[in-house]
Amino acid sequence: MARTLAGLPTRGNLGVMHITILGGGGFLGRKLAQRLAAGALPGCTGLTLFDLHEPAPLDAPFPVRRLAGDVADPAQLRAAIPPGTGLVVHLAAVVSAAAEADFDLGLRVNLHGTLAVIEACRALPSPPRVIFTSSVASFGGGQSAHLPDDSRQLPANSYGAQKAAAELLLQDATRKGFMDAVSIRLPTVIVRPGRPNKAASSFVSSILREPLLGLETPLPVGEDFAVWVCSPRRAVEWFLHAATMDTTPLGLDRGVNPPGLSVTVGEMLAALTPTERALVKPEPDAHVAAIVAGWPASFTADRARALGFTPQEGVADILAAFREDDLGATLAERGMAATRTERGL
Amino acid sequence: MARTLAGLPTRGNLGVMHITILGGGGFLGRKLAQRLAAGALPGCTGLTLFDLHEPAPLDAPFPVRRLAGDVADPAQLRAAIPPGTGLVVHLAAVVSAAAEADFDLGLRVNLHGTLAVIEACRALPSPPRVIFTSSVASFGGGQSAHLPDDSRQLPANSYGAQKAAAELLLQDATRKGFMDAVSIRLPTVIVRPGRPNKAASSFVSSILREPLLGLETPLPVGEDFAVWVCSPRRAVEWFLHAATMDTTPLGLDRGVNPPGLSVTVGEMLAALTPTERALVKPEPDAHVAAIVAGWPASFTADRARALGFTPQEGVADILAAFREDDLGATLAERGMAATRTERGL
Repeated sequence: MARTLAGLPTRGNLGVMHITILGGGGFLGRKLAQRLAAGALPGCTGLTLFDLHEPAPLDAPFPVRRLAGDVADPAQLRAAIPPGTGLVVHLAAVVSAAAEADFDLGLRVNLHGTLAVIEACRALPSPPRVIFTSSVASFGGGQSAHLPDDSRQLPANSYGAQKAAAELLLQDATRKGFMDAVSIRLPTVIVRPGRPNKAASSFVSSILREPLLGLETPLPVGEDFAVWVCSPRRAVEWFLHAATMDTTPLGLDRGVNPPGLSVTVGEMLAALTPTERALVKPEPDAHVAAIVAGWPASFTADRARALGFTPQEGVADILAAFREDDLGATLAERGMAATRTERGL
Repeated sequence: MARTLAGLPTRGNLGVMHITILGGGGFLGRKLAQRLAAGALPGCTGLTLFDLHEPAPLDAPFPVRRLAGDVADPAQLRAAIPPGTGLVVHLAAVVSAAAEADFDLGLRVNLHGTLAVIEACRALPSPPRVIFTSSVASFGGGQSAHLPDDSRQLPANSYGAQKAAAELLLQDATRKGFMDAVSIRLPTVIVRPGRPNKAASSFVSSILREPLLGLETPLPVGEDFAVWVCSPRRAVEWFLHAATMDTTPLGLDRGVNPPGLSVTVGEMLAALTPTERALVKPEPDAHVAAIVAGWPASFTADRARALGFTPQEGVADILAAFREDDLGATLAERGMAATRTERGL
């Protein structure tokens, strides 16, 4: 943990610092906080979890502040990112379907929220490392794409446009010395715990999660449909790597396409038992198919590999991680505790 | 002028409309306004010129409003872009050196100003055509670059980052149906009238303008240094084409690299007389050279050609246009009227 923030004025050591997670009450923010509480970054001396609603309590060997607020409010952001902050993990976002349905809300959180992060970091006595989650949705390309690292971002949705614009602003803020940013363009994260939602990508998690719960689920696309995915575990590992890596090799270009997994629906279903697989019911949905067909299904991710980001494991490992990390909580959340007991989980 | 704004709800005709020029008091805004006053878009029924300072009066066969205001103020922008506006030409900007010196001012005008344009257009009963001036400064690449049309924008300056982010937001606003935007990434515009300024690119105009005025001027780079340029005349022609072109072929991608001219300093100097050329004094400047060396010196511009944007003429034509259009005013501005008379201009 003694690696310096190369090329930028710094305390010279990431080992003694406050850490702030914006979106700290969310799915990935919570997992990252738990890893920090378990000592993943040993020098962490305090943690602020900031979200729209007050994040749940967290047992940790350091003080944990839990703040509810608006990420686009500069004063609240300054309070969330106090002097002494060495790392800001900016996960707060209005995701794809929501940003498409409410343009103003998406712009406010995804763009103005990022501007507030820049302002808060700039006000610190020394520039913190900032990890920003951008998205595969900031690219086009579609099923046939195998995008090289210098691919242009031409988003076909407001979420992707706001993320790509935020990346440009964080890149410039880094060049100006206000922060030391790494933007990780996350693949579709599977298996998401909880319930199906209205995101067009919801089915990618549902076709694995619902059968594990013993429930039927619709499949809106064909089995040859390919998608670029990562597991929540791998995403959190990438955040931890981005927190401590030497950023000198990034130069001006702070965006990273991490080494996810390009996998077809058929390959995902093959990881289920025959009984589980029978619960996935083909129900072609032209609306969903039209949206997801625009997403690139694969990236070379050569640069990220060279930077030390570890590749996503296969589907069997993704399923095993879900069983270990999230199946129990998902069953409980959905009132299926009895079922859980019956099934000996 | 009867071409429709294809693919968007519209009055169906660009021939009857109000036009607003943001930055209407500036160098290019003024030239465009003069072309409109001379009938370049015959159906123009009224013109609003908006700038930081009240633009000068303009003789025109239609009413001309001249407004002073802040382009980042949403209320002022709504007043500047009234119902009935069919075309907004958004030239208001804090340019490269100024945006680098004052980060907040650049962000305010270049990013928040564009957000205010989006809000004002969205409030109109039907979406207007919007012409936005982006810049070659939004790209990297350097002297050896010959950038294809799908090149990624990786700006090395705040101005370029803000312009590239604004392009993404205008693109998304177009996809949402709030407007019909065309972003023209202007080359370095030569010959700029008036005086040398602090922009790193100032010398590209100065090495032609100053000798024509009989004045010495320093040359901070070598004669083999190449630059991507266009004339003010050609830039205004591109605006007029973008105002009336069929935008259907643009699809999602609203950014255009227009067909400028890649020219070396030596080729520019060769267009001067030997007497004029002797006034250009080599004075290597490592600071200026370091900035300008990052700019791409050439683009393929194939897409823009196919879209009907006409290519930039050669240096001799650029010089002739400056003599016709701007030399007199430049002499007058600089108190050189006597010299002008002596030289028979």
